[in-house]
Amino acid sequence: METLPSILLMLFVVFALARTFSAVVEKFGFPGLIGEIVLGILMANVVINETSLVTLLDLGAGTNNNSILYTFSELGVVFLLFSVGLETRVKDLLGSGRTAFLVALLGVIVPFVLGFAFIEVSDGQFESAMFLAAAMVATSVGITARVIKDMQLMDKMESRIIIAAAVIDDVLGMIVLAIVQGIAGSSGGLNILDLLIVILKAVVFVVGVIALAKWGVPKIVAAWVSTNTKRETPFKRPNPLILALAACLFFAWLAEEIGLAAIIGAFLAGMLFADYAETTGLIHSIETITTLFISFFFVHVGLQVEVGAFNNFHAILEVVVIILLAVVSKYLGCGMGAKIADRTISRESFNIIGFGMVPRGEVGIIIASIGLTSGILDNELYSVIVMMAVATTIIAPPILSSVFKRKYNNHQYYEQE
Amino acid sequence: METLPSILLMLFVVFALARTFSAVVEKFGFPGLIGEIVLGILMANVVINETSLVTLLDLGAGTNNNSILYTFSELGVVFLLFSVGLETRVKDLLGSGRTAFLVALLGVIVPFVLGFAFIEVSDGQFESAMFLAAAMVATSVGITARVIKDMQLMDKMESRIIIAAAVIDDVLGMIVLAIVQGIAGSSGGLNILDLLIVILKAVVFVVGVIALAKWGVPKIVAAWVSTNTKRETPFKRPNPLILALAACLFFAWLAEEIGLAAIIGAFLAGMLFADYAETTGLIHSIETITTLFISFFFVHVGLQVEVGAFNNFHAILEVVVIILLAVVSKYLGCGMGAKIADRTISRESFNIIGFGMVPRGEVGIIIASIGLTSGILDNELYSVIVMMAVATTIIAPPILSSVFKRKYNNHQYYEQE
Repeated sequence: METLPSILLMLFVVFALARTFSAVVEKFGFPGLIGEIVLGILMANVVINETSLVTLLDLGAGTNNNSILYTFSELGVVFLLFSVGLETRVKDLLGSGRTAFLVALLGVIVPFVLGFAFIEVSDGQFESAMFLAAAMVATSVGITARVIKDMQLMDKMESRIIIAAAVIDDVLGMIVLAIVQGIAGSSGGLNILDLLIVILKAVVFVVGVIALAKWGVPKIVAAWVSTNTKRETPFKRPNPLILALAACLFFAWLAEEIGLAAIIGAFLAGMLFADYAETTGLIHSIETITTLFISFFFVHVGLQVEVGAFNNFHAILEVVVIILLAVVSKYLGCGMGAKIADRTISRESFNIIGFGMVPRGEVGIIIASIGLTSGILDNELYSVIVMMAVATTIIAPPILSSVFKRKYNNHQYYEQE
Repeated sequence: METLPSILLMLFVVFALARTFSAVVEKFGFPGLIGEIVLGILMANVVINETSLVTLLDLGAGTNNNSILYTFSELGVVFLLFSVGLETRVKDLLGSGRTAFLVALLGVIVPFVLGFAFIEVSDGQFESAMFLAAAMVATSVGITARVIKDMQLMDKMESRIIIAAAVIDDVLGMIVLAIVQGIAGSSGGLNILDLLIVILKAVVFVVGVIALAKWGVPKIVAAWVSTNTKRETPFKRPNPLILALAACLFFAWLAEEIGLAAIIGAFLAGMLFADYAETTGLIHSIETITTLFISFFFVHVGLQVEVGAFNNFHAILEVVVIILLAVVSKYLGCGMGAKIADRTISRESFNIIGFGMVPRGEVGIIIASIGLTSGILDNELYSVIVMMAVATTIIAPPILSSVFKRKYNNHQYYEQE
């Protein structure tokens, strides 16, 4: 049972340790989230007297999805994507539309085909291969977004393409997952109608929110601000934060409800307020809330990793090949997508977009969990997919920050060096 | 089981409804928290087809202390008290020391004696009477603090006395609770040593933190800021928010661990940063986090009320008398305390201090729960105490805001009227 003191202790211990690990890793020039993931892996896998640290600390983590840690972790990524949405204006997103779409599309097709082919050939399990392929398709915009935000490069062309492509990729990924689940559920046969409904819901949701952001919200916000400015009772100050928080929670729930990920809803909700985020101080407020929650997400990602599953040569070989496939397929797929859309794109931009889409993060892990829960994935392949998601998440940020620096930071840091 | 969609839906529904009720109540000139408590009472007691709204909405609330709603409610009051602490400088607190102490002391003695005498005479149950008396002693600084903050009167002399007295009152209240529990546990005999240990722990904790705030923190913060300003890696910006959040969670836990309320720890942690809260923007950041959490606290207070317990004349009479006693005893006790400390204090200040200490809020409810869980209070007397805590919480804010306005706001709102 989680009492108030144990909740407070868990929050303090995880928050303080995560921030300490984060600060240490940053000292070596890597993004802090790697330190937080490593902390999670250590807590789940360092065993003292046959008891893991996470059990010793009584963190109620891992598979127990009811725990406070899990809730904080999910809210962390929801608020992170909300704040990314706040910095993504609809007109900018539509501006990078064709390139982003091609990046996302090839970033879905190439990893899916390569992942499916590898498992089908090596293991011969059709359904497992489909699930691994679906997990390979995912892109965790959260990881890349944090690197970009930490480097303060949100306004660069490549950043916008990556973020936009990652959102399109999420939608495509959910469709792929729905197809895979449909095939797995019906033992080979696929219900075309169900598939069309999933695609339709996703498209209507995204296009609907974008239309709302472009035409509906400006009127609503204007009315809200003027109402609150007029009545100056002693108990009331105009505060768009309340409206923004409600919208974030609502759209995150709505996305889950229609079969998409909560983070897609949160991101779109952020876009609704993007035109007002700077002037109202909303960006700063949401960043403050994200600061409280986000470390729990990355620690939770690390907690999912069971190092013990990799105790034989076959498992180690399999995980190494799959990690390589995951990195290469995304890098080539997304880079080629950008190249096809714009032949003049530089090699540096190719690298940034290719590596920016590599991290699978929570999306890959969620797909792995669905596969495990539905009995399609066995425990070993599940751990392999989680390891792939974590490895791509750890590998990508330092590479991304280095390719970003090669293009943008040389002259920016010129004066200091 | 609470899945991510159900958690998001619960958070959205409660947050949106609470803020709507709050806004409506504010339109009529009352503080918004009353609307949030009323919402909680409605959700727990409005029954459709033999199912309460709270069950229909699947909020996992009420007695289920594991729920997300409970955690958010507790974190809400912790962060609220932390932000109150941020605005309470040690030198100001020590400045209002003697008056605040006398206010707190008489505010403990008078309600305890009157509450104990009434139940002992009317029911003849010694242990129940002790528990009701202990619940009468409590002061919920959270309620009063929100009224004061909403009216932007934190810098007034009465506000400082109330906040300081409420903190001292909390410490005295915990000692009273420990004594009552000691007597109840030992069936009449009291262990003097246990009692001395409780008193000692409380005093050492409070004095220790105040000493830390006065001598230790200035050095630590200076070191933290200078370290973070020096190393300007691309991933790091100096952020005292992280240190403040960690301290808030740690001291809230520490207070619970040594037998005090979490809110006392949070308040003291806030005091540690009070000298830096304005310049670093910490006050604004913590207010943002409080905005997310605090509505859940007041809704949760309302959810505790079982209107069905008041279905007979005896229960109704008892609750009316106890509410009257609770208001009158605190008002007179605290007002007299202020008058004894400073003979020149005005009638308006007497009223502000007297009514400012009236709300029992969560502290009274927590004591009632302890009594219920330990089998000393029956369900009816438990509901009576909860009703008393809620009633004083509802009654006090409009009276307090009106007596505050009589002293300070006449001229402030002069131009508009």
